[in-house]
Amino acid sequence: MTESYTPPKVWTWDRESGGNFANINRPIAGATHDKELPVGEHPFQLYSLATPNGQKVTILFEELLEAGHDAEYDAWLINIMEGDQFGSGFVDINPNSKIPALLDRSGEKPQRVFESGAILLYLAEKFGAFLPKDPSKRTEALSWLFWQMGAAPLLGGGFGHFYAYAPTKQEYPINRYAMEVKRQLDVLDRRLADHEYLAEEYSIADMAIWPWYGGVLKNKAYDAAEFLSAHEYKNVLRWTEQIAKRPAVRRGRVVNKSWGDEPGLAERHDKSDFDKL
Amino acid sequence: MTESYTPPKVWTWDRESGGNFANINRPIAGATHDKELPVGEHPFQLYSLATPNGQKVTILFEELLEAGHDAEYDAWLINIMEGDQFGSGFVDINPNSKIPALLDRSGEKPQRVFESGAILLYLAEKFGAFLPKDPSKRTEALSWLFWQMGAAPLLGGGFGHFYAYAPTKQEYPINRYAMEVKRQLDVLDRRLADHEYLAEEYSIADMAIWPWYGGVLKNKAYDAAEFLSAHEYKNVLRWTEQIAKRPAVRRGRVVNKSWGDEPGLAERHDKSDFDKL
Repeated sequence: MTESYTPPKVWTWDRESGGNFANINRPIAGATHDKELPVGEHPFQLYSLATPNGQKVTILFEELLEAGHDAEYDAWLINIMEGDQFGSGFVDINPNSKIPALLDRSGEKPQRVFESGAILLYLAEKFGAFLPKDPSKRTEALSWLFWQMGAAPLLGGGFGHFYAYAPTKQEYPINRYAMEVKRQLDVLDRRLADHEYLAEEYSIADMAIWPWYGGVLKNKAYDAAEFLSAHEYKNVLRWTEQIAKRPAVRRGRVVNKSWGDEPGLAERHDKSDFDKL
Repeated sequence: MTESYTPPKVWTWDRESGGNFANINRPIAGATHDKELPVGEHPFQLYSLATPNGQKVTILFEELLEAGHDAEYDAWLINIMEGDQFGSGFVDINPNSKIPALLDRSGEKPQRVFESGAILLYLAEKFGAFLPKDPSKRTEALSWLFWQMGAAPLLGGGFGHFYAYAPTKQEYPINRYAMEVKRQLDVLDRRLADHEYLAEEYSIADMAIWPWYGGVLKNKAYDAAEFLSAHEYKNVLRWTEQIAKRPAVRRGRVVNKSWGDEPGLAERHDKSDFDKL
């Protein structure tokens, strides 16, 4: 641990620092270049990538279609390592330059929606699906949805970064965030000990939490399952495996996926696209 | 920067580590002791502390009352440094052991709500206030509300921790999170350049974002305004000052405040409590 570092009076941008993803981390917002987004034939245009935040939304779209809703969508790949999120068209939809971003063209004028949690809530309300109708259960589902939004930055932007991506391993940050992630997993484990799903019914709360917390337990992120003693979280593992078997989840999680050994669809425009896998 | 650290195969709990707040950070969830929560006379029982996440909700309650809604509430102090959040009564309301937590006793059976964003949405929907009625503006407000939930952990749990609270100053984490916080401030600054509020009308999105981002710019958190070049964010500063003048905000932000030089109310049970300040 560095004992002697004194921060400067005023922070300045050193473009050399930052580890993995250094090239896409910036201290300023806004577009870096002009680029229009492609637009397909369906009402919903999704601009995304199959990271956990991206998977949330493609899983919901596939669940909506599986349940018979008219939720056809075009899913376009945003390559964040190449800076697609800083193109002017993308920034118009999400000024925060993060995937996923949605444009709903089904109404009189196009509606932008950004932040994965906001997109899940928007679609669940629009179709009246995957959010409990009962007010008390709906409130519980939304508490867990917001829990995920506040918790996962400490898993992804904290633990994952320092354990897997930072240029050197540092004990203090790894220890800090490992403790927090284990606490979060235990919060889920206790809830799922006597609830099949987070909010009784399968809902957008499960879809938000599964890609992150199921992912880390199953070693799909950060190669940290052993480090975090994944086997201790038996109820989260039961729930993770149960959700993984759903046909819509199996489709949704590989949309906008163009890396790794597992087959994926860089783009998705029709249900027949999955036949190519 | 430590070059030589190799994480163990399996993380284990070293109770000595953790810096400030080490005594309240744990890798396990659940209650540590039996303790019932106090209950007052009003329909809404809030268990909180005047941190930025706590202020969001007390500001909304005071705004609702200011606007004539029947939103009387009892606000009880949860001393997180003494572990009140691990009492059994608190954990029953928020299994995540974080403030704020709300119990709504106005219906047939008590309803728990946890996570500040979920509480804001719950109350805004219950009273039909501070969330735009127009569907498009409502969607925009919710996008910004979820933005805050995902962004602030990198401000509070990232930047604030390493800049102000960690046992030693470390260059890499401070630099990483300072860059991200400046980016977030610039996202807000660009939005507020041509919008009076985040979602046109003053809404729960503003109430969620103001305590965190207004706070850091005005040096109310982390003493980092100079380090982050707060003066650059002129539009955020304009909006911060505008909101700070609202009578309900001036009341709400000092509820459940029992530290510092500024007068605050450890508990709030009636509007006349503010006369004591």
